[in-house]
Amino acid sequence: MAGSPAGQEIERLVQLLAKLPGLGPRSARRAALALLKKRESLLEPLADAMAKAASALKQCSVCGNLDTADPCTICRAPERETGIICVVEDVADLWALERASVFRGRYHVLGGALSALDGVTPERLNLPKLLERVKAGHASEVILAMNATVEGQTTAHYLLDALEPLGVKITRLAHGVPVGGELDYLDEGTLSAAFKARRAL
Amino acid sequence: MAGSPAGQEIERLVQLLAKLPGLGPRSARRAALALLKKRESLLEPLADAMAKAASALKQCSVCGNLDTADPCTICRAPERETGIICVVEDVADLWALERASVFRGRYHVLGGALSALDGVTPERLNLPKLLERVKAGHASEVILAMNATVEGQTTAHYLLDALEPLGVKITRLAHGVPVGGELDYLDEGTLSAAFKARRAL
Repeated sequence: MAGSPAGQEIERLVQLLAKLPGLGPRSARRAALALLKKRESLLEPLADAMAKAASALKQCSVCGNLDTADPCTICRAPERETGIICVVEDVADLWALERASVFRGRYHVLGGALSALDGVTPERLNLPKLLERVKAGHASEVILAMNATVEGQTTAHYLLDALEPLGVKITRLAHGVPVGGELDYLDEGTLSAAFKARRAL
Repeated sequence: MAGSPAGQEIERLVQLLAKLPGLGPRSARRAALALLKKRESLLEPLADAMAKAASALKQCSVCGNLDTADPCTICRAPERETGIICVVEDVADLWALERASVFRGRYHVLGGALSALDGVTPERLNLPKLLERVKAGHASEVILAMNATVEGQTTAHYLLDALEPLGVKITRLAHGVPVGGELDYLDEGTLSAAFKARRAL
């Protein structure tokens, strides 16, 4: 109750908003106030959009993407290559790659990365379906596009072990200096990776 | 559509979430995904909490605070001094002061600060009721607890001009070095204010 004389209704709203990524307890409080101050222009449309998105969107049974159709638009697109599967941790990563328009194959969304700390075991990821897709001969190359974090790289190693026996070509994204990045601000790991992977001009 | 192959439902959700303070376009996208991934544990309870808070909370007709009761709990509290009114910009500021437990009088929430840039004119603030409360003899002191921003200080000056003719004592919060603050990190304005308001030990 401390700090909110308005009672349990608003406390509950603040607590739930604070669960959204990017919102801490303080910004959740500000967000709750903004919602209550702008009921017609923000709270009601947001509640409506949440309900609509929840009912319209489903998980693609092939790749795990979120879409209004199942299989999703990407899995059904005839112009996209079926032979290359890009494995990502999350739908957000799929969106990021689509924004960059670098890839015209299919995706596979794991729904997270292995993490002993957060209790994410291989069973909790969308892995069996990936092995099935590869085994069924639908893939000549699997690109492991995990995040360059400890969890992402652990997941990539795990996938490498699981996929290698299937005889498919396995690749990973290159590490290096980000475009526009300044060496001075980069960590040693990135610099060392960029150095080792240097290319002749 | 760029970056979200999942269609208009999710785009709309992202756009509305991005209107919350503290969420930009990128974090709104992550928040939307978190909501859709955790429907039972997050999206549905949040929608429910939003509806409950919207229907339960109203603006106090005396001071502008948000509460389930009108007049609000603070305006009705018999143990709180009626003679001192602390004027704040926002309900969030009221909560911050209540958290600090420094003030046992009544509040007046303006609902914002004057800002030519954002089109906030005196007419859009909860000002007339404040003048009414002071005129009706309910206040011996008015504390102007606006933010130390340009808008906040403009509002404080405006209020000073409006309140002075009423013969009420008007005070403002002290400026100075924040507790725990390091001089090295403070701006010149704060340092100069702290220096000018120095006190004998």
